[in-house]
Amino acid sequence: MGRDGQFDDAFRDQLEQLFRWRRDVRRFKSDPVDPALLRHLLELADLAPSVGLSQPWRFVEVEDEAARKSILASFERCNARALEGYDGDDRALYARLKLEGLRDAPVQFAVFSDEETVKGRGVGRQTMPETLRYSVVAAVYTFWLAARAAGLGVGWVSILEPKELCTALSTPDAWTLVAYLCVGYPVEEHLDPELERAGWEVRK
Amino acid sequence: MGRDGQFDDAFRDQLEQLFRWRRDVRRFKSDPVDPALLRHLLELADLAPSVGLSQPWRFVEVEDEAARKSILASFERCNARALEGYDGDDRALYARLKLEGLRDAPVQFAVFSDEETVKGRGVGRQTMPETLRYSVVAAVYTFWLAARAAGLGVGWVSILEPKELCTALSTPDAWTLVAYLCVGYPVEEHLDPELERAGWEVRK
Repeated sequence: MGRDGQFDDAFRDQLEQLFRWRRDVRRFKSDPVDPALLRHLLELADLAPSVGLSQPWRFVEVEDEAARKSILASFERCNARALEGYDGDDRALYARLKLEGLRDAPVQFAVFSDEETVKGRGVGRQTMPETLRYSVVAAVYTFWLAARAAGLGVGWVSILEPKELCTALSTPDAWTLVAYLCVGYPVEEHLDPELERAGWEVRK
Repeated sequence: MGRDGQFDDAFRDQLEQLFRWRRDVRRFKSDPVDPALLRHLLELADLAPSVGLSQPWRFVEVEDEAARKSILASFERCNARALEGYDGDDRALYARLKLEGLRDAPVQFAVFSDEETVKGRGVGRQTMPETLRYSVVAAVYTFWLAARAAGLGVGWVSILEPKELCTALSTPDAWTLVAYLCVGYPVEEHLDPELERAGWEVRK
């Protein structure tokens, strides 16, 4: 099933479960992740749709301790500023939210869009150049779903200064930061979002 | 399997096949699509990750003939301009590319990001507000994968003028166009991208 492009009810049911169990994970075990599994997940990410077949995603694994420290410092600056935007009960609640797993996630990726890629030769992105970044989002989400199906958790951290990350990682000028991913085995598994459990927001 | 958040090799293999068979479809049969199936797919799209649980996606079904005509006219203007950017063999090849299924797709959605949604109360998008649009991309891709698993094809058209579409569909000022989707049963099924078959670009 699947190899001929046809899928059955049992698969569709499991796919729905995957969408439900795909959570943004912020609590990771320190267990290492098999590099062969990571390579396989990155290969699957290459199957994501991209505008004009441009495949502009660039996954940069962040292992260097100094780079990780700069990124954590960037998060802490941004998060302190964000906290100032809330008052009263909201502020107290925001302060208690667990928004990232930067200290614990054994594997971390910064994911960029190469805005000057010649791949695809410009097709489809003359009037909506943002579709290049959107293609990178599709690759990130492909990675995320495949990782979850393999028992791994992924957390997308967006409370960061893109410029600081580009500096910390010495990326080419034409690369735009799209996502920062924490990856590892989750401490706990949930069907409901962290922000719902914490009483911050509910799903529609 | 799946209901406890655990997935097996058979599912992972089928998921990989889904990623491979998920193509950008530009040739649609005129067969109608069951409205109950569409509703289900839109419910699944609501399971997509979103920054701060903001769920900013707004799917607008485009059925009105006048609106569809304006959108097709917008594509034709943009595509004529894009063609002028290529020379020689590239130009001849570009002119032959089939880039959309706007005339045939029985179901069409314009998908917007509500930039002023209060949902999520701003969490996670102070320094990277584009994550709101990125969340919409995740919803579009969730819809796309679920549609393919149900035998439907989806094509993402980006050769459009966002402003013209907002006018044609009278959307609120705070909505940003992220994607325009053609949906229907595909005329043919492929494992390789249309642009690869047409000799325009190859996959990495």
